[in-house]
Amino acid sequence: MTTPIDLLLHARWVIPVEPEGAVYPDHALAVHGGRIVDVLPSARAAARYRAREIQLLDRHALIPGLVNAHVHAPMVLFRGLADDLALMDWLEHHIWPAERRFVDPEFVRDGMRHAIAEMIAGGTTCFNDMFFFPDQGAAVAAEVGMRITAGLIVIEFPTPWARDTDEYFSKGTAVYDAYRGHPLVRTAFAPHAPYTVSDDALQRVSALAEELDVPIQMHVHETAREVDEALAASGERPLVRLKRLGLLSPRLQAVHMTALDSSDIALVAEHGVHVIHCPSSNLKLASGFCPVHALQAAGVNVALGTDGAASNNRLDLLNEMRTAALLAKAQAGEARAVPAARALHMATLAGARALGMEGLTGSLLPGKAADLVAIDLGGIDTEPVYDPISQIVYAAGRECVTDVWVAGRRLLAARGFTTLDVEAILGQSRAWRARIAAEGVGSGPRAPG
Amino acid sequence: MTTPIDLLLHARWVIPVEPEGAVYPDHALAVHGGRIVDVLPSARAAARYRAREIQLLDRHALIPGLVNAHVHAPMVLFRGLADDLALMDWLEHHIWPAERRFVDPEFVRDGMRHAIAEMIAGGTTCFNDMFFFPDQGAAVAAEVGMRITAGLIVIEFPTPWARDTDEYFSKGTAVYDAYRGHPLVRTAFAPHAPYTVSDDALQRVSALAEELDVPIQMHVHETAREVDEALAASGERPLVRLKRLGLLSPRLQAVHMTALDSSDIALVAEHGVHVIHCPSSNLKLASGFCPVHALQAAGVNVALGTDGAASNNRLDLLNEMRTAALLAKAQAGEARAVPAARALHMATLAGARALGMEGLTGSLLPGKAADLVAIDLGGIDTEPVYDPISQIVYAAGRECVTDVWVAGRRLLAARGFTTLDVEAILGQSRAWRARIAAEGVGSGPRAPG
Repeated sequence: MTTPIDLLLHARWVIPVEPEGAVYPDHALAVHGGRIVDVLPSARAAARYRAREIQLLDRHALIPGLVNAHVHAPMVLFRGLADDLALMDWLEHHIWPAERRFVDPEFVRDGMRHAIAEMIAGGTTCFNDMFFFPDQGAAVAAEVGMRITAGLIVIEFPTPWARDTDEYFSKGTAVYDAYRGHPLVRTAFAPHAPYTVSDDALQRVSALAEELDVPIQMHVHETAREVDEALAASGERPLVRLKRLGLLSPRLQAVHMTALDSSDIALVAEHGVHVIHCPSSNLKLASGFCPVHALQAAGVNVALGTDGAASNNRLDLLNEMRTAALLAKAQAGEARAVPAARALHMATLAGARALGMEGLTGSLLPGKAADLVAIDLGGIDTEPVYDPISQIVYAAGRECVTDVWVAGRRLLAARGFTTLDVEAILGQSRAWRARIAAEGVGSGPRAPG
Repeated sequence: MTTPIDLLLHARWVIPVEPEGAVYPDHALAVHGGRIVDVLPSARAAARYRAREIQLLDRHALIPGLVNAHVHAPMVLFRGLADDLALMDWLEHHIWPAERRFVDPEFVRDGMRHAIAEMIAGGTTCFNDMFFFPDQGAAVAAEVGMRITAGLIVIEFPTPWARDTDEYFSKGTAVYDAYRGHPLVRTAFAPHAPYTVSDDALQRVSALAEELDVPIQMHVHETAREVDEALAASGERPLVRLKRLGLLSPRLQAVHMTALDSSDIALVAEHGVHVIHCPSSNLKLASGFCPVHALQAAGVNVALGTDGAASNNRLDLLNEMRTAALLAKAQAGEARAVPAARALHMATLAGARALGMEGLTGSLLPGKAADLVAIDLGGIDTEPVYDPISQIVYAAGRECVTDVWVAGRRLLAARGFTTLDVEAILGQSRAWRARIAAEGVGSGPRAPG
């Protein structure tokens, strides 16, 4: 008696992430109704399942889809616009002016489509976005079949998305209402940062997030300067202020967190705050070093984000995973810090946990959504394979990703998109570049010497 | 009157590296007899040259071939064998035993062929290797058409290559003699490290290098422990000892250099010593941080290396370039440190200079060898392009490399090798893995949970 199912994937290695470090050689994964129903030795699968579709992944590791826990996806249209600048110079003189001038619903839809293509091709199946017009971004993700948490941004100055605090809240809650119960789209509050959001607004965020039962994501302690300026102005560290306002809880994802002393680490550990580590962005903007090893030792859940393409410049979570693992070792002075299996956990299950989706995605357990990535380890850049987890973390690149499924639907098939038109996306992005460069925002190509 | 030439490449951007930061849009590069003969606007090329072969690179940047200034190439066969371990544990309990057991001429030839394939596909056209049986490694590079400096290793313990110091020298000079005047193969002395080579042997290296006019490459100040142990044993910092022995000069490439105080930096600046920075390896082994920004500010030439695949685990100089740029910013606390154009310079001309090949390769000047790489910037991971140098350094990956020439000979054509058989290489590497894993060296796949 065999059970009919939608899809059976035979992989050289199934790496479930739960339990951490496990590798199942020559295993199969059974999918039905968009969910994982079984993980079992390939040799036993034929006797148990009759699949409508069977795929052989004989040089591949099959892993959970990667979770990009912090990105400003539409900013991909600003990729490389203003590099090699410090955070506040970059924000105040380049990025915020460019956003004021160009960000509108069309920009967000075009940028979001491009960013989702880049993320899918790199093995990301779920991301938390923080940008303006989250209604537009969510619509594109839903249309393409990508899993998103759309951040409902709150910031104390007018932007093309909203004029004032009240409008940020009213528009945000409207997006929440529109996507309530959607199979792929969730929402979260996204107050920009301690230095751009008032106590009043933060308390409203806290109360509303509780009422609607959604997460909160915020840039926190991104630089030492942020902490120093807060101390100079109020005598209070930003994390202490957030505690006073009731924001420190497992509902909060604190992004960046480079300027942390031991009291900060104790505070986030005590309150179950999740940390979203964005190593490339923190390095590139010289923001500082997030003490990942110390946070993990204190029991804090640390997930990974790429940040936006204007400060990274790759929406490439495999690369972030490698950078996070390498950087943590040197920073801790301990080569055993963040070993490969831990890095893979950070890029998958820790991200799902931070986003409040631990029951839905992030590992290959029966009952979870079939958010899956096949990584070809049989090429010249990844052979020989002694340890497939090491190989994924330290050697593989996004070009090794061949197939991607979200909720059982294949969005990438043998490196081709099934729901996206690459040439159309590239055409739109080039048109945006021409418009933006023509107005003199950004550096443009350098003059011949 | 048009001049007949071998090859004319029309590129969307030619990035010559010299002058640093220059970008020539819609330019052509003319090649004849393996040398660059001209760089000129594409629109003027037809009137000036009649090429036997013309290639259009309409979405591409054409850059000088990357120089991987430090690698132990055949160790690619140990990739991922023993990860997440500290340097001395990794060396003493894993890598050196594996080398003693398995390294022989066949291992070196097979590993070298695999490593060269990986490097060519990633845009490297020249590398300095440090490994046993340099005669075998050099033979493979010559056969494949790759540019190599083969390091003539000296170390004070017996290995499969030599029994004692005298034999290291006699075998090394024999390799030097065999490749004297070869168009692609050069040699250099490669004393392993201050803590593994005696004063006597180092003085012999210094004298012989002078006599034969070849460079010297050595691991120096790789970790703080190395410096501390030297101080404890002799009261002398390793760099001070090298100065006493006459090794500090523009002939010396000091690799790693993480544990440097201001007197060390002044010393290498004063003597024109080149520093080879291996950021991934230094991070992964928790060796420390090379102060790149401070070294460059002192006028030191800093080149880049991947180190061996057992400690990186990618022979991917584009990735090293990005990691070096990002890391330098955070380490210096200055986002303008090592801007994109400087990083590209480190990966090309600084490498050529360190290896004593500045007149031959590293930039696109007429008269230099046609060591060239075409990078496709027109894909989803690299569009839109405001600044092609930023895009190459921060966004592009090795998968964007489409074509590679060494001395005018195309070794990679539309991502296919012209002188290497990938399937044969992969078969050999898998066979080595089976042998090595069967003997219980290395961790092997983890048991199912």
